[in-house]
Amino acid sequence: MRASIVIIGDEILLGQVTDTNSGEIARRLGPLGWEVTRTIVVGDSAEAINEAVASALVQSDLVITTGGLGPTKDDITKKVLARCFGDGEMRLDADVLANVEAVFAKRGLALNDLTRAQAMVPVCCRVVQNELGTAPIMWFDAPGGKALVSMPGVPFECIGMLSKAVIPLLRERFTPDMAYRHHTLMVTGITESALAERLAGFERSLPTGMHLAYLPTPGYIRLRLDYQAGKRELSDEDFDAKVAELKGETAEHLLYDGDASPARILLELLAAKGLALATAESCTGGNIGHLITSVPGSSDCYLGGVISYSNDVKSAVLGVNADDIAEHGAVSETVALQMAEGACRVTGADCAVATTGIAGPGGGSELKPVGTVWIAARTPSGIVARKFRFPGSRERVIERASTEALLMLIGLLKQS
Amino acid sequence: MRASIVIIGDEILLGQVTDTNSGEIARRLGPLGWEVTRTIVVGDSAEAINEAVASALVQSDLVITTGGLGPTKDDITKKVLARCFGDGEMRLDADVLANVEAVFAKRGLALNDLTRAQAMVPVCCRVVQNELGTAPIMWFDAPGGKALVSMPGVPFECIGMLSKAVIPLLRERFTPDMAYRHHTLMVTGITESALAERLAGFERSLPTGMHLAYLPTPGYIRLRLDYQAGKRELSDEDFDAKVAELKGETAEHLLYDGDASPARILLELLAAKGLALATAESCTGGNIGHLITSVPGSSDCYLGGVISYSNDVKSAVLGVNADDIAEHGAVSETVALQMAEGACRVTGADCAVATTGIAGPGGGSELKPVGTVWIAARTPSGIVARKFRFPGSRERVIERASTEALLMLIGLLKQS
Repeated sequence: MRASIVIIGDEILLGQVTDTNSGEIARRLGPLGWEVTRTIVVGDSAEAINEAVASALVQSDLVITTGGLGPTKDDITKKVLARCFGDGEMRLDADVLANVEAVFAKRGLALNDLTRAQAMVPVCCRVVQNELGTAPIMWFDAPGGKALVSMPGVPFECIGMLSKAVIPLLRERFTPDMAYRHHTLMVTGITESALAERLAGFERSLPTGMHLAYLPTPGYIRLRLDYQAGKRELSDEDFDAKVAELKGETAEHLLYDGDASPARILLELLAAKGLALATAESCTGGNIGHLITSVPGSSDCYLGGVISYSNDVKSAVLGVNADDIAEHGAVSETVALQMAEGACRVTGADCAVATTGIAGPGGGSELKPVGTVWIAARTPSGIVARKFRFPGSRERVIERASTEALLMLIGLLKQS
Repeated sequence: MRASIVIIGDEILLGQVTDTNSGEIARRLGPLGWEVTRTIVVGDSAEAINEAVASALVQSDLVITTGGLGPTKDDITKKVLARCFGDGEMRLDADVLANVEAVFAKRGLALNDLTRAQAMVPVCCRVVQNELGTAPIMWFDAPGGKALVSMPGVPFECIGMLSKAVIPLLRERFTPDMAYRHHTLMVTGITESALAERLAGFERSLPTGMHLAYLPTPGYIRLRLDYQAGKRELSDEDFDAKVAELKGETAEHLLYDGDASPARILLELLAAKGLALATAESCTGGNIGHLITSVPGSSDCYLGGVISYSNDVKSAVLGVNADDIAEHGAVSETVALQMAEGACRVTGADCAVATTGIAGPGGGSELKPVGTVWIAARTPSGIVARKFRFPGSRERVIERASTEALLMLIGLLKQS
């Protein structure tokens, strides 16, 4: 069965806010057997919403919309859908009003007319209570057994309520005709095209309905093998055999069997070895710490670190020799190595990563252009440092340096 | 003139990768007078690409596609477009081949057949050299003076080459009939609905073509006033007068005149006052440092900080009294205050923010449930701490705590 997603909001269309809801929704619908065929982003315009909803309903059994449900004048989704699926008539929903009142009371805020208007819903829809916010979730039935579900745009409410309330309702109502399976492997140390050459035979051997996708990311490539059994019946055993074959083909470059962030892979390795981690960051400015601590349970292995952005902090807190900074510069092998050692010393950790570089756009020189980064990784069995030259913007240099630092320590731990 | 964006890629549609290109493209086209009316995301399927391109060309003068141009078998955009706009015939482009060879030589990699195939381009297109990667950018002319430009999916290449090469070509070819202006104000300390009630009269007073949008974010609301002069002629003076009026209406809650991240607002305030900043992060794990150092030039004011994830690091590096941690717990007012003081002491900074809390999903208790965060902010004139209770996931708690910490220090600096 086919699903489409319609994302509503000028702020998304104009690029002021990045939509993450469509991806999260797709990730949840896929495993349930839904084939998401299209996502459309439109602005807060009645004409655009009408057209997107109409064309999505032609193509799909299920349409999920997000956004345009706020209390302000620019949010018009509710009214448009009321006319799309009925005569536009609205009613006051007592449960929604009670919910809005409860949310406002909890936050210590006064209710006003605009907020109260959140409780007005189209007569032609079925309301699903939004336990995470004030905008009601609306289920509209369409001819041919089709349905449209209108979700709030706030990601926390949208995805939270999708899982909590909407997916159970979808399971009751629809029986998708398609089984979907996928498995991801992460490989590193090989280019996409070299990998594709190596896997050409494997790809040719795939049965109809099974498909290999390359998802390159700076530092590593994710290989996603998937199949949709609706297109041709394939057993789980067939799929597992192909996963095993792919694993064999990529063994020497395999970073991880599954789909995980480098930070999570590192934390799993550290936990398995009973080692504690620290960070010493200059050009990455805390991003490595953030990537690590974004993983639940990271406190089991991660003790903390120092963001030694200024040279004084490198010396005063991490104990980097000030003469070495003066002689070799802050962006140098010796400073990176001393930062990693210092991070272990001041936190008591066994392992550390350290970064020092020029993220740009300013600060570059002929000898050390923007993008030059020294990265060090330390384990109980050794310490290494390597110089990188990353292309692109400040944001990109920070991202790449962070990823490479994590990958460097992963590599060092796998060797030891 | 109308533009549509077509994002091509299973990885986007399935939610494995978040599309940021469409927003970046829209942000660049808007000020040039283009009205972006729709973004469509489709998978790597010939049928879906064909249909999306065809319907986009009906609705728009310009279609920009991204993605599906990689060297591997799953990338089919080039072939589909060759048949969409011509007879499918391909030719070898010597300049593209030279570029691919140069890119590979620079990276010290060997060229293989798949990479070489990047230089095959549809006969019916005009090639725009991609100086940032190997996939050629293709310009297709369509009946009615319309055009489609196919860009690579890698954001760095897509957005880089859009600015460098494609936008200059668009300026040559099209003369958009619409002027677009917008101005954003950031307000804080008021709910969206209370703000909307206050601004109801202002909104009613807006002439046709001018529009106020509310973009709420945890911690603050962005108000975007925009107008499209094509719909009705409006002078710049009319627009400026409305901006001034909006500023007056929101004066007591105004956080910033413009659109900037809280980190950038903080750094501007610090620079104006000649003050240096440090961070002490427990539950935010480096994210505040990352937000600050994402701003170019942050090194002028930001000295660095400590990610004191473990209690030992709080004591050993920041000098938090271990007895206080034992007595009050790590998530307490006194620990937050001592962390902020410690950050200033060890880095020599004048100002600091500190966070200590329970980001979850584990670690909560009845007295201190998940989401409990103590935040402290220190300036030369004083220090404050406040307890928050943030709802939602780990990611959300980290984000909100980071934003509130920055806003708290901004508030303190504005008072002093």
